[in-house]
Amino acid sequence: MNSTPQTGDHIVKGYDQELKRLTGEIQRMGQLALSQLEAAIDVVMERDSDAAMKVVHDDSAIDALEHEVSQDVVRLLALRQPMARDLREILAALRIAADIERIGDYAANVAKRSIVLNQSAPVQLANALPRLARLAEGLVQEVLVAYRDNDADRALDAWARDEELDEQYTGLFRELLTYMMEDPRNITPCTHLLFIAKNIERIGDHATNIAEYVYFLVHGTQITQTRRKGDATSGLAIDGPR
Amino acid sequence: MNSTPQTGDHIVKGYDQELKRLTGEIQRMGQLALSQLEAAIDVVMERDSDAAMKVVHDDSAIDALEHEVSQDVVRLLALRQPMARDLREILAALRIAADIERIGDYAANVAKRSIVLNQSAPVQLANALPRLARLAEGLVQEVLVAYRDNDADRALDAWARDEELDEQYTGLFRELLTYMMEDPRNITPCTHLLFIAKNIERIGDHATNIAEYVYFLVHGTQITQTRRKGDATSGLAIDGPR
Repeated sequence: MNSTPQTGDHIVKGYDQELKRLTGEIQRMGQLALSQLEAAIDVVMERDSDAAMKVVHDDSAIDALEHEVSQDVVRLLALRQPMARDLREILAALRIAADIERIGDYAANVAKRSIVLNQSAPVQLANALPRLARLAEGLVQEVLVAYRDNDADRALDAWARDEELDEQYTGLFRELLTYMMEDPRNITPCTHLLFIAKNIERIGDHATNIAEYVYFLVHGTQITQTRRKGDATSGLAIDGPR
Repeated sequence: MNSTPQTGDHIVKGYDQELKRLTGEIQRMGQLALSQLEAAIDVVMERDSDAAMKVVHDDSAIDALEHEVSQDVVRLLALRQPMARDLREILAALRIAADIERIGDYAANVAKRSIVLNQSAPVQLANALPRLARLAEGLVQEVLVAYRDNDADRALDAWARDEELDEQYTGLFRELLTYMMEDPRNITPCTHLLFIAKNIERIGDHATNIAEYVYFLVHGTQITQTRRKGDATSGLAIDGPR
């Protein structure tokens, strides 16, 4: 392995294959994180604590993949000593893997919190929570495709759509506070639901991070558009006039 | 600049200086994040919305430093093509900078949420919140020193102490839920305080991440001890028997 060429002419078949392997691992991580998120929302809605425990446990598969990605990155950097765009590509892979790992963590947190939620009487949430989760899933799916296809436009589109997720989260936040005020018995379950919703909102933030990395990867510049980002409830006075 | 030696013999004075510059930037980032956290708790306690806005605004200085660190890392990787321990050192710098950036974000979130908190009547929290914040600050301080001194024992010690932070957070979480149940007028402010406390608990998690990177940097192996990590309130039934 030490016979790797030390010249700038590193674009050999082996390198491309290794890079492909790396991005393949990341796609696999992404698909795992997506199915974890879907499973997490299912266990919340079905109040299935056994299935929730499985989701919590399965998060380790994503962690293991991120560890593999890190090791591949270190190996690629050390042996291939890439420059310019290749280097950007490898560092983007490292960062995107870290964001997907966090998405997996949030999915596991949702499942974990559902276990204690099942100790309270059910709160009627209609479809607000699964709708929020589907939006988040859609964003993650979009940024993964954008990454796979090097599609900056698709990344930008997903990035802009996170605002929709933030709005739905804010609506759910208000709704939960209202339930808490109506009946003190709702306070404990609704607090847990607030944190569950917050986890999903954070998944959207990580999807926008990935969108930003893809955009930078393709264009070599940052997204210049601005939009309100993140949690608007930190600026919400709920018991004042709507 | 293209005359950089392409041999394994990269340990030149310039390299060490660049690495020193990099770790210096990270220490500066860390100190900034610490003073942001201190300022954030001050504005919460003093209900000073103007000062809170300054904290939110000042977060951009930490973001800018992280951007510098990333660029330095890319430059170091491309020009110096480090191997083995040097490579590990540079990647650790990248990761630690990312964690400090997140700590800064959480401090800014605390300040941002305090602005809306000031729209409600004050909640008597005694010293629970500043105590929690001081614990988090202490952990961040310790891991920064551990990083500066390459001190794995100190890192391990800080890593283990995050459990104390988690316990205090859990206590505060219970206390806030109790206030909410006692008086519905407490629900909105206490919900914001829950999220503020959660932000501080998350800062502790990022401090333990940094501790893990330092440990790995020094020993080349992961921390093998296990401990309960993270938010125990996700397993808490508050309105059952204590």
